[in-house]
Amino acid sequence: MATIFVLNGPNLNMLGRREPGIYGGKSLEEIGEECRTAGREAGLSVDFRQSNHEGILVDWIQEAADSADGIVINPGAYSHTSIAIHDAIRAAGKPAIEVHLSNIFTRETFRHHSHISPVAVGVICGLGPTGYILAIAAIKQVIAARG
Amino acid sequence: MATIFVLNGPNLNMLGRREPGIYGGKSLEEIGEECRTAGREAGLSVDFRQSNHEGILVDWIQEAADSADGIVINPGAYSHTSIAIHDAIRAAGKPAIEVHLSNIFTRETFRHHSHISPVAVGVICGLGPTGYILAIAAIKQVIAARG
Amino acid sequence: MATIFVLNGPNLNMLGRREPGIYGGKSLEEIGEECRTAGREAGLSVDFRQSNHEGILVDWIQEAADSADGIVINPGAYSHTSIAIHDAIRAAGKPAIEVHLSNIFTRETFRHHSHISPVAVGVICGLGPTGYILAIAAIKQVIAARG
Amino acid sequence: MATIFVLNGPNLNMLGRREPGIYGGKSLEEIGEECRTAGREAGLSVDFRQSNHEGILVDWIQEAADSADGIVINPGAYSHTSIAIHDAIRAAGKPAIEVHLSNIFTRETFRHHSHISPVAVGVICGLGPTGYILAIAAIKQVIAARG
Amino acid sequence: MATIFVLNGPNLNMLGRREPGIYGGKSLEEIGEECRTAGREAGLSVDFRQSNHEGILVDWIQEAADSADGIVINPGAYSHTSIAIHDAIRAAGKPAIEVHLSNIFTRETFRHHSHISPVAVGVICGLGPTGYILAIAAIKQVIAARG
Amino acid sequence: MATIFVLNGPNLNMLGRREPGIYGGKSLEEIGEECRTAGREAGLSVDFRQSNHEGILVDWIQEAADSADGIVINPGAYSHTSIAIHDAIRAAGKPAIEVHLSNIFTRETFRHHSHISPVAVGVICGLGPTGYILAIAAIKQVIAARG
Amino acid sequence: MATIFVLNGPNLNMLGRREPGIYGGKSLEEIGEECRTAGREAGLSVDFRQSNHEGILVDWIQEAADSADGIVINPGAYSHTSIAIHDAIRAAGKPAIEVHLSNIFTRETFRHHSHISPVAVGVICGLGPTGYILAIAAIKQVIAARG
Amino acid sequence: MATIFVLNGPNLNMLGRREPGIYGGKSLEEIGEECRTAGREAGLSVDFRQSNHEGILVDWIQEAADSADGIVINPGAYSHTSIAIHDAIRAAGKPAIEVHLSNIFTRETFRHHSHISPVAVGVICGLGPTGYILAIAAIKQVIAARG
Amino acid sequence: MATIFVLNGPNLNMLGRREPGIYGGKSLEEIGEECRTAGREAGLSVDFRQSNHEGILVDWIQEAADSADGIVINPGAYSHTSIAIHDAIRAAGKPAIEVHLSNIFTRETFRHHSHISPVAVGVICGLGPTGYILAIAAIKQVIAARG
Amino acid sequence: MATIFVLNGPNLNMLGRREPGIYGGKSLEEIGEECRTAGREAGLSVDFRQSNHEGILVDWIQEAADSADGIVINPGAYSHTSIAIHDAIRAAGKPAIEVHLSNIFTRETFRHHSHISPVAVGVICGLGPTGYILAIAAIKQVIAARG
Amino acid sequence: MATIFVLNGPNLNMLGRREPGIYGGKSLEEIGEECRTAGREAGLSVDFRQSNHEGILVDWIQEAADSADGIVINPGAYSHTSIAIHDAIRAAGKPAIEVHLSNIFTRETFRHHSHISPVAVGVICGLGPTGYILAIAAIKQVIAARG
Amino acid sequence: MATIFVLNGPNLNMLGRREPGIYGGKSLEEIGEECRTAGREAGLSVDFRQSNHEGILVDWIQEAADSADGIVINPGAYSHTSIAIHDAIRAAGKPAIEVHLSNIFTRETFRHHSHISPVAVGVICGLGPTGYILAIAAIKQVIAARG
Repeated sequence: MATIFVLNGPNLNMLGRREPGIYGGKSLEEIGEECRTAGREAGLSVDFRQSNHEGILVDWIQEAADSADGIVINPGAYSHTSIAIHDAIRAAGKPAIEVHLSNIFTRETFRHHSHISPVAVGVICGLGPTGYILAIAAIKQVIAARG
Repeated sequence: MATIFVLNGPNLNMLGRREPGIYGGKSLEEIGEECRTAGREAGLSVDFRQSNHEGILVDWIQEAADSADGIVINPGAYSHTSIAIHDAIRAAGKPAIEVHLSNIFTRETFRHHSHISPVAVGVICGLGPTGYILAIAAIKQVIAARG
Repeated sequence: MATIFVLNGPNLNMLGRREPGIYGGKSLEEIGEECRTAGREAGLSVDFRQSNHEGILVDWIQEAADSADGIVINPGAYSHTSIAIHDAIRAAGKPAIEVHLSNIFTRETFRHHSHISPVAVGVICGLGPTGYILAIAAIKQVIAARG
Repeated sequence: MATIFVLNGPNLNMLGRREPGIYGGKSLEEIGEECRTAGREAGLSVDFRQSNHEGILVDWIQEAADSADGIVINPGAYSHTSIAIHDAIRAAGKPAIEVHLSNIFTRETFRHHSHISPVAVGVICGLGPTGYILAIAAIKQVIAARG
Repeated sequence: MATIFVLNGPNLNMLGRREPGIYGGKSLEEIGEECRTAGREAGLSVDFRQSNHEGILVDWIQEAADSADGIVINPGAYSHTSIAIHDAIRAAGKPAIEVHLSNIFTRETFRHHSHISPVAVGVICGLGPTGYILAIAAIKQVIAARG
Repeated sequence: MATIFVLNGPNLNMLGRREPGIYGGKSLEEIGEECRTAGREAGLSVDFRQSNHEGILVDWIQEAADSADGIVINPGAYSHTSIAIHDAIRAAGKPAIEVHLSNIFTRETFRHHSHISPVAVGVICGLGPTGYILAIAAIKQVIAARG
Repeated sequence: MATIFVLNGPNLNMLGRREPGIYGGKSLEEIGEECRTAGREAGLSVDFRQSNHEGILVDWIQEAADSADGIVINPGAYSHTSIAIHDAIRAAGKPAIEVHLSNIFTRETFRHHSHISPVAVGVICGLGPTGYILAIAAIKQVIAARG
Repeated sequence: MATIFVLNGPNLNMLGRREPGIYGGKSLEEIGEECRTAGREAGLSVDFRQSNHEGILVDWIQEAADSADGIVINPGAYSHTSIAIHDAIRAAGKPAIEVHLSNIFTRETFRHHSHISPVAVGVICGLGPTGYILAIAAIKQVIAARG
Repeated sequence: MATIFVLNGPNLNMLGRREPGIYGGKSLEEIGEECRTAGREAGLSVDFRQSNHEGILVDWIQEAADSADGIVINPGAYSHTSIAIHDAIRAAGKPAIEVHLSNIFTRETFRHHSHISPVAVGVICGLGPTGYILAIAAIKQVIAARG
Repeated sequence: MATIFVLNGPNLNMLGRREPGIYGGKSLEEIGEECRTAGREAGLSVDFRQSNHEGILVDWIQEAADSADGIVINPGAYSHTSIAIHDAIRAAGKPAIEVHLSNIFTRETFRHHSHISPVAVGVICGLGPTGYILAIAAIKQVIAARG
Repeated sequence: MATIFVLNGPNLNMLGRREPGIYGGKSLEEIGEECRTAGREAGLSVDFRQSNHEGILVDWIQEAADSADGIVINPGAYSHTSIAIHDAIRAAGKPAIEVHLSNIFTRETFRHHSHISPVAVGVICGLGPTGYILAIAAIKQVIAARG
Repeated sequence: MATIFVLNGPNLNMLGRREPGIYGGKSLEEIGEECRTAGREAGLSVDFRQSNHEGILVDWIQEAADSADGIVINPGAYSHTSIAIHDAIRAAGKPAIEVHLSNIFTRETFRHHSHISPVAVGVICGLGPTGYILAIAAIKQVIAARG
């Protein structure tokens, strides 16, 4: 059974409490639960985590190099500033899909550029928690295609 | 039954013939067929079209304002140059999801910016033809949520 | 009797339906009617047209080179992207006045630059449908002055 | 009877003497006279002034906050450098229309940007002294519409 | 017998009437006749066309993918704005040579960059109608070299 | 007894009347009164002035070189455009603290840069009229420290 | 009794040892002691902390969302690079004042922009340890005003 | 006898008191005296003035249009920000030479660009008070050459 | 008999040895021979030279002012950095055509701009050694047209 | 005996597994062993560490201020984003040499700038693991020279 | 007797033949003669030279370090591109004055920046051959002042 | 026995005389002697040269293509301006290491970019004459590894 790491960056643990007009009313726990359910139905083991620390996200991606078949990552604010996460994904050698809850292209200019996108297979943004579910469906296909 | 326009911009009619390393081997007709099937299963009527003309894409989006409940659009090269399509989507008042077959952020710099993203609900890129199917699933949810 | 082409670019046919907070509540047909009336009172024949197609706008400006004495043009979104319309006006050799319903300088940065302004005699923006009427008054003077 | 301030910035007192190829042969006094006549016919009191001092233009706009119903302003060179005039117009709370005799978009790059445009209702440029007359007609409508 | 499409973009149909100081006094028909003659002497069939529509130029380049051995293109103003034509040439898989009548590097800055050059085999500019004849000679060699 | 000049730039005389959402409801006279009170309690003579004229602000800063021990300055819009005030402060050789009522970093981009900050001892912004009181407290310490 | 978090970013624990010409001779412990004293006199509980880790600063700001009434933060070098701290402050929903010991506008260009300023109530810089005391006074007022 | 205006911008009245390391130890009065002497020897009447007000400098340049044969101007900080002075010189129709005491190209970047240079006959900088004397010698030649 | 200088810049003497994937397999001597042959057939004397020294290229262009009727120049790397060669061609007063073997617009960004193009009659690039032959044909026409 | 900290940033623990085409086939442990050997031969104690956490790297550099005589640092991706590490090195007051295994100037543009270089004594890049050995040799000299 | 090198860069040997509208009608020889005369009258030995080669100009400046007391240099086109000449002047340790015949600030943008100005004592431009004479007068003073 | 060219660019012959604070007190001759000694010990023949002429450096690098096994180059000021040297190294096909005596990243911005770095194997800067010795050690390894 394939394993997927679903990794969440800084402040995503505040979901539900934080600016619901932008991010919606669901908590990260609820999204995690939905991801695990979607994974189960798709025959995937989903390991759902969050950290505010760039270094821990790098640690986890390195762990994924050994222990996972694919990565779904919402890097939060580190999308825009972290070359270390960029490098970690490139080094891990596992397919990754980048997810953003909000449409980052309708927000401040400094959120329009992501250091992660060039090393992701693909990007899904603006579709709220549904974006995670779509990413899990997609990563399953990518893993299968890479066989 | 809700109706969705799936609109395709310039050169997408060349799919399958054109740079399969970037865009994959499926023709646009095959993708259209998959979209219609996915629509049927989801209880949506899918109207799938392609044009090389910016003006015709604008015409179709205006038509969607009257005749469709949502739009899935792969604007191709016009993503990067067309404010007219940006305006048309904004004026149409119907939710739109932008799709790109390839990950535009791994390509030439001039493909990193899309005039369409700021008026789309969300963006899906890099996931090949699967991106269209995910977009149809997502637009269904968005339409439902807007009631 | 002098003839004036009043040309309208993409999405202006949506006026009245589209973002009345920005563009006001009048339809393009009503504005056209007001322009024809103003022309009649000023002794001018007004030919009022709209197209979503950049190429058709170029065709019409070339037609104006033979058939009109002056041009009033609201190029809409093509203001910001079309060098072809710029070239057409320059080649036509007829005076042109650029009109925008809204004040483009209070909107997104990408609307602050117009490729048309450098080849127009003058620019009127932010004054709503009145801008067309003022432009007709002004083009009449310009034509008279050029004799 | 509504009162309009028509304010002119630096060097406009040199009109008629200065570069007639760009600005035409009329003196500022003649333009002032035409504005007062146009005002009289439109039932408006026109107060026409000129200063080379940025601070005096700010003083006058503040005066307009109390004593005028609308402002027509040709800020001359201060268009491109004065945030103080921008702030004064915004604070005055009276509608303002920006006028330029020449088409600033056909001149040096540093004249293409105006700090005043974002706080003006609209902009008229390139139409010579006629621009003032059109601006008076337009400001009358704006005042009427604001009631 | 090899077939070459010689495609001309917007406003080139105005040649001879338009700014002879920049473009010379020959009409596009005369240039077309010279191209056909040069083709005949070189044993090439020359299909010479012009359109003001970006979409039609894209259509023709796609047609060339099936029906021509090489392309000579003067994209006119679309050189500077059309990624769609860039994509069409790349997808067509046929060698293309870009031609400009005038030396675009001596004109406005916005004419210094061409989206077409990176997908052309080569570029010839500033040599007037002779540039077309040289391009036909060169494309013949390129076709021969590619076998 | 040390003397402090508290200098205010253009449009600050409109405080209380102007955009209270941004600047609060107090008038400049009230702020001046609070500053004089705070000065009195701190054993400082406070000379509180306002001008819309850049040149007068320069004159006053030169006067401060002879007659004051420190400067608190809210340069208003001239913060962003005046190198003359920058030079005057540098030449005066007296410590200066820059104050802004609003947080300039949450406003338009052209307000993010101040020519005055590099020649000020420090900057206080976003704290409303309290900012003046804090600046007076701070300038007292700076004067004492410089002995 | 209101509680304030006074948070310090990377390298501030080196104060007193590090470049006294720029930062002064006081240690961070001494500043902390002064802050606690100032808090006590103002009837505020001051929780003074320092970390070199961006993630820990984010953790603490999230903690402040539950446990503090206001934040005074000297983000040190993370001012210029951390969107994660920007997001944390925005999400926390508690007023924050940004403090810098030195005048960042007199230093290297890369220190002139702070990601924190746009989400702070206000900014105090260049006033040394006094800046902390002023910020505590100001945050008390802001908390009171928000009631 | 030809008359020359020697005009000095903001803060130059502080010379001798202000940063002698950059500007030298002479007062503006002494420089004025040297200019008058040099003028006398060259058979020129020298009118030497200084103002901190941009508007007054514009007034004086307009006065020079009627009353002077040439202008020597050290615009000080207004060199870098004043388009109004640029316009005034252009409109005055009298030759002007720009002088700077210090070498502006060795100072801050914002002093490297002068709005005055493009409308001056020539520029002399970095040569201290001698620069004024050389400029008077040069303007005499220019006036003579223009006859 | 007209004389043409065919001048080659730095490293072109390495042709054939250097990166044949970009520049082809012919040596510069072979290209020179082809140019002389083409010249002979066209009734032109061809003087073919190469230097790695910018100064020598300037010397030769100055020599051409006296001794040649036209110039064909492949400035190599100096295209992108030499204003001295730009000035020399402008001063020489003889028509020049710029040639590049490779398509510089498909290479590194720093090769996209040429200082020579604005002073050349025209530019030919990307057509390999054929580009020289075409340039000789073209320069012959230009010389004839200038009479 | 002098002590040197050899510090390694994020993802360097993946060496040998990660992109050997860029970084070579040696593991970080092997490089560490070589460094310790080189240190031993040079009479230096080498403390070799790696972390994915920016904060830990800052902690270690602060530790070096007390416990080391010099620093060799390969900051990996943090080179390009970390002002905190820049500040830490500057504050530590110990000489530091920056090392990169690959030639960062041949890679993506965002790797061309390092925040660390301006506070390093020197930089060695592109020489693979040898770069560490050379840096140890150099830091020994620097320490000796500083006495 | 003090010795001055007057050095001239590329293409200045074409003076008189080249664009007299910009540079005037005098030859470089005539200017050299005037410089020698002016030197003689001032008690200076003037060594006047010209080269098209950047390297030779560097050689001569190094020679001046030993053999001259001051340098007057018109670097021509190398002003804008040569850091080598910048370094040579800095290393020579002799005062240098930069001269340009034309006003470089009224010409193309690429002539507005000089690499030489930051290492020159001062700059004189736009005053034609008189500029050389003024520079000789000035350099004499500078040499005297440095004693 | 392998041969290495050690090439030095403009002004490096002034070492020892020139700005010892930046470059140290050794002459280039002494560095050359040290390089030859280091070469001898490493079994390498070292050919040490200097020129102020860009063209001669290109000539020597071309010579190295035939006569050397590797290149150590300190291009001095040409690092920042010479694409010709970049091309020469690329064409030579021999490994090159770039050396700078000073740390160019602590100096003026225009010294931060080197055209040579992208074609060098590696870069060593800021380590003074030791940098040459380290480069010789490294080039030996590179030559050996390439076998």
